[in-house]
Amino acid sequence: MNKNFVGVYPVSITPFKEDGSFDYDAAKKHLDYLIESGVPGICVWGATGEYQSITLEEHKEYVREMVPYIKDRVSVIVGCTREMPDEASDLANNAFACGADAVMILPTYYCHPSQEEIYEYYKYIADHVNGGAIMIYNNPSSAGVEIERETYKKLMQLPQVQVVKESSGNIRKLTEVLNDSTDHVSVFCGWDNMAYESFVCGAVGWISMLANMAPKQCVNLFEAVYTEKDYEKARNIYCEILPGLTALETVAKPVQAIKYVLDLKGHVGGYCRRPRVALTEAEKEEVKQLFNLDVLY
Amino acid sequence: MNKNFVGVYPVSITPFKEDGSFDYDAAKKHLDYLIESGVPGICVWGATGEYQSITLEEHKEYVREMVPYIKDRVSVIVGCTREMPDEASDLANNAFACGADAVMILPTYYCHPSQEEIYEYYKYIADHVNGGAIMIYNNPSSAGVEIERETYKKLMQLPQVQVVKESSGNIRKLTEVLNDSTDHVSVFCGWDNMAYESFVCGAVGWISMLANMAPKQCVNLFEAVYTEKDYEKARNIYCEILPGLTALETVAKPVQAIKYVLDLKGHVGGYCRRPRVALTEAEKEEVKQLFNLDVLY
Amino acid sequence: MNKNFVGVYPVSITPFKEDGSFDYDAAKKHLDYLIESGVPGICVWGATGEYQSITLEEHKEYVREMVPYIKDRVSVIVGCTREMPDEASDLANNAFACGADAVMILPTYYCHPSQEEIYEYYKYIADHVNGGAIMIYNNPSSAGVEIERETYKKLMQLPQVQVVKESSGNIRKLTEVLNDSTDHVSVFCGWDNMAYESFVCGAVGWISMLANMAPKQCVNLFEAVYTEKDYEKARNIYCEILPGLTALETVAKPVQAIKYVLDLKGHVGGYCRRPRVALTEAEKEEVKQLFNLDVLY
Amino acid sequence: MNKNFVGVYPVSITPFKEDGSFDYDAAKKHLDYLIESGVPGICVWGATGEYQSITLEEHKEYVREMVPYIKDRVSVIVGCTREMPDEASDLANNAFACGADAVMILPTYYCHPSQEEIYEYYKYIADHVNGGAIMIYNNPSSAGVEIERETYKKLMQLPQVQVVKESSGNIRKLTEVLNDSTDHVSVFCGWDNMAYESFVCGAVGWISMLANMAPKQCVNLFEAVYTEKDYEKARNIYCEILPGLTALETVAKPVQAIKYVLDLKGHVGGYCRRPRVALTEAEKEEVKQLFNLDVLY
Repeated sequence: MNKNFVGVYPVSITPFKEDGSFDYDAAKKHLDYLIESGVPGICVWGATGEYQSITLEEHKEYVREMVPYIKDRVSVIVGCTREMPDEASDLANNAFACGADAVMILPTYYCHPSQEEIYEYYKYIADHVNGGAIMIYNNPSSAGVEIERETYKKLMQLPQVQVVKESSGNIRKLTEVLNDSTDHVSVFCGWDNMAYESFVCGAVGWISMLANMAPKQCVNLFEAVYTEKDYEKARNIYCEILPGLTALETVAKPVQAIKYVLDLKGHVGGYCRRPRVALTEAEKEEVKQLFNLDVLY
Repeated sequence: MNKNFVGVYPVSITPFKEDGSFDYDAAKKHLDYLIESGVPGICVWGATGEYQSITLEEHKEYVREMVPYIKDRVSVIVGCTREMPDEASDLANNAFACGADAVMILPTYYCHPSQEEIYEYYKYIADHVNGGAIMIYNNPSSAGVEIERETYKKLMQLPQVQVVKESSGNIRKLTEVLNDSTDHVSVFCGWDNMAYESFVCGAVGWISMLANMAPKQCVNLFEAVYTEKDYEKARNIYCEILPGLTALETVAKPVQAIKYVLDLKGHVGGYCRRPRVALTEAEKEEVKQLFNLDVLY
Repeated sequence: MNKNFVGVYPVSITPFKEDGSFDYDAAKKHLDYLIESGVPGICVWGATGEYQSITLEEHKEYVREMVPYIKDRVSVIVGCTREMPDEASDLANNAFACGADAVMILPTYYCHPSQEEIYEYYKYIADHVNGGAIMIYNNPSSAGVEIERETYKKLMQLPQVQVVKESSGNIRKLTEVLNDSTDHVSVFCGWDNMAYESFVCGAVGWISMLANMAPKQCVNLFEAVYTEKDYEKARNIYCEILPGLTALETVAKPVQAIKYVLDLKGHVGGYCRRPRVALTEAEKEEVKQLFNLDVLY
Repeated sequence: MNKNFVGVYPVSITPFKEDGSFDYDAAKKHLDYLIESGVPGICVWGATGEYQSITLEEHKEYVREMVPYIKDRVSVIVGCTREMPDEASDLANNAFACGADAVMILPTYYCHPSQEEIYEYYKYIADHVNGGAIMIYNNPSSAGVEIERETYKKLMQLPQVQVVKESSGNIRKLTEVLNDSTDHVSVFCGWDNMAYESFVCGAVGWISMLANMAPKQCVNLFEAVYTEKDYEKARNIYCEILPGLTALETVAKPVQAIKYVLDLKGHVGGYCRRPRVALTEAEKEEVKQLFNLDVLY
């Protein structure tokens, strides 16, 4: 376990204005809310942040504005995946220059890489960034490929690899990675509706979508297992928020759902960029039902 | 069926030099070879062309150089998929300005769009390009989502949609699309080792990886079904090239395999860009075995 | 191709009385109707016949009564799968003694056999029956395992193996089996909503659920492809009956659906045995909608 | 949780002689060994016991001989699944008459039942046995269907349902069942290589294949979590036996593998009945490698 990476990191939504530009005021208020709720870190430019719907320049600009705003209060991880490793390295170097603690990198998601190509991709990025930490992100559903055991083991020997996000949805894979992990690596849960199971099995952190909306409950769930070892309490919190966690894995428009719930709470979720389109009225009603708003806030 | 789009279109590899720059000489020689072999069209910037490993600027530059080189001889389809519809439209407009006959567009491959978002994505592009034809490309393995029946039907009512590439690997889906297709739409096979089955079931074209290496056999297979209706002959050709077709769907590094076979043939396949890495010596041997070189050339 | 096995074989339902006993009158009338509709053969004791809901003794008794009733008019195939090869052989010998033309055998469906065990199972049965024909039945959905290519090839070298039922739902598998098949083997379609595709790709027969309800259309579809080679006509018939074919692959209670449609037609479908339970009123309405009764009869 | 069902129950192999008859001496010695190793219960006639390769009469005879031999020392659960609910009830009544504590019933594994049919099957059996406990067994890989949440909830309201075996391989399903379970129901793990994860998430028992070969380690693993709450110790035991657990889920012939390991240990595993065939020499070598014999005994 790497002590620098522990606990619940909300994978923050990115509030856009109606014209598609960044709404920095809304973004900062959202992050203030998350930090005041007790999270030890924030993840920006995850898939939930719509990181594929911006240009490289926009990515960098946003990082230059937001990472310094966060970094003295809590830890920051910045998603920097690009199909081209040079672009990923470029984004990562900008993130580190702005104060990021780590960059989150998925295997190249379009070309269905071989295991060798997965390793070489990470190795190339590790060799081209100046010393910051890398989070490996295994998500076969997004990347179209699984990081297999031997590849994982080789990757975890790179000193830059200090944290892993396991989003395979397979608890045995999590146990395998935990058993194989070296001392300098923290293993995080990256599958919202498997969070409790992941913590009791040994995951020491969570890149969480739900924590955008319910940061306190997410932190309480983690702490109940990790610090207090009170599994009964943890299970009760989990049951309370499980409808929301499950909904995020099943609704057709999860990012829009989060933004809408934030709007309902009196926050500013903001608009999405294309290709995402707005919730219909029927979908809004469904979100109200599924997310169990009385419990969450 | 749309008479403008019929027959075998090789989805061309893109030869790079060792330093990563375009090798235009090799590219032109390769296209000359394909055209002289009798193909009625070429598809550039498909996945086989490594279209995710280039910048927008590079895409446009290559199109400006290569489409005019091809267009007076055979038809050209240019892959223009980008997660951001503005970028896709921008690439499409450049392609049409250079003389492309159609642009090939996959649903956004990263965000796992809803069916509504798939439709809106295509609609947005159709509304932002000046009249050229659009090829819908259904490939659940690459895009992470299936274009469902109702979405397909709505899309095929757009006048810009004139050709469909079916890469679901499900022959019943092909039959369904054929039955639902309007008069101005041609349905193509996009799954190499299901080409014969697709033709006998009614597909009128093929975006083909194997045709990079064996254009004549691919054309002969198509013609035996489509023009000659000689299924026995077609099946014999198919059996001859099936090992190659299957290998392309199963080897870990298909693009590199094609380039290597071209090198073996005395052509110039060229280098790949990262994240793709070169074949190992063992993989080269495997390719020699699998692709049945004596038959192919 | 084996000329003894060609064309549409309905896989007959078994009409039970309310007390669970065989309704031989209904069974005979149903078979008369099928035979008069022009089918060249009948398959009894398939899954559609509820062959897992009877004892060995009941299987034999039914065969003793029904096979002689059919055999001088059309061909008969009898499903004889049992997890224990001795029981399967025993049923097969009874079937052949009563005049059956072939027995249909699925790989052992419970134990998830290895490929070697699949082969040995068929070999054992082939060695223990007196010369009758065996139909290999590949249905990974029912058996939990696929008969792989090399196993298929070895099995098709057994002289007893004279017909194959391909129910993988994968058209390339069908092509592969056709290409690998020996002269004495006919390859049948066993996946209702892939019938047209299977015929145009070379299947010479069909073990058909829909043919219980719409035998003429099923025969016409087959003949349009196989005898007349009129694919346009075939496709039109196919489109007409496709809703029914698809419904049979998707409704929760397909056997009950067939029996209910037969009742609606004025025939006697009869009761099902447990574990099957009767259609609810809502399910009956759904069946009426899905099966497109005006077209079918 | 039901206090009558807690802990590790090996799902015992059934030793056959070369002629296929029961080897009762070997069976009794094997059970003595398991009981002396500290297991609180035994499961006979599971899939590992080849319960599909015997007749109804043989099932009953074996139960009459073996259940009394076990029942005063430890608890006994008897697998009684049959596609016909009358046969299942008949076997269950014999088992209870001989002293069994529960019967294990899988949904009907051949007919792909609807959720309603699954419920009605269990309800029928519950209504036809005299008061003994029923174990629900959810195993989509064996049964071809999943017991869905609402079905599970209805089933767990039957007073006869006192224990559940979860073999979906999906840890979230286990958590769901645990959260939904009533006071009189114990939830067991039924997926060998997910045992540790299942225990830390709340499973209170394990129907275990590996416990045939390594009963002490399996009991120690369970006790470390359940009684001692020493997760570090549990994880270490788990890592030690994980190769064996994983091998049982992956080798082509798991039952034969267990019997062979028992032979190597100086016990008598005995022969298998058809359709299972003996290990080849190469497979024996593989088993020696995979099962890590030095650690296990």
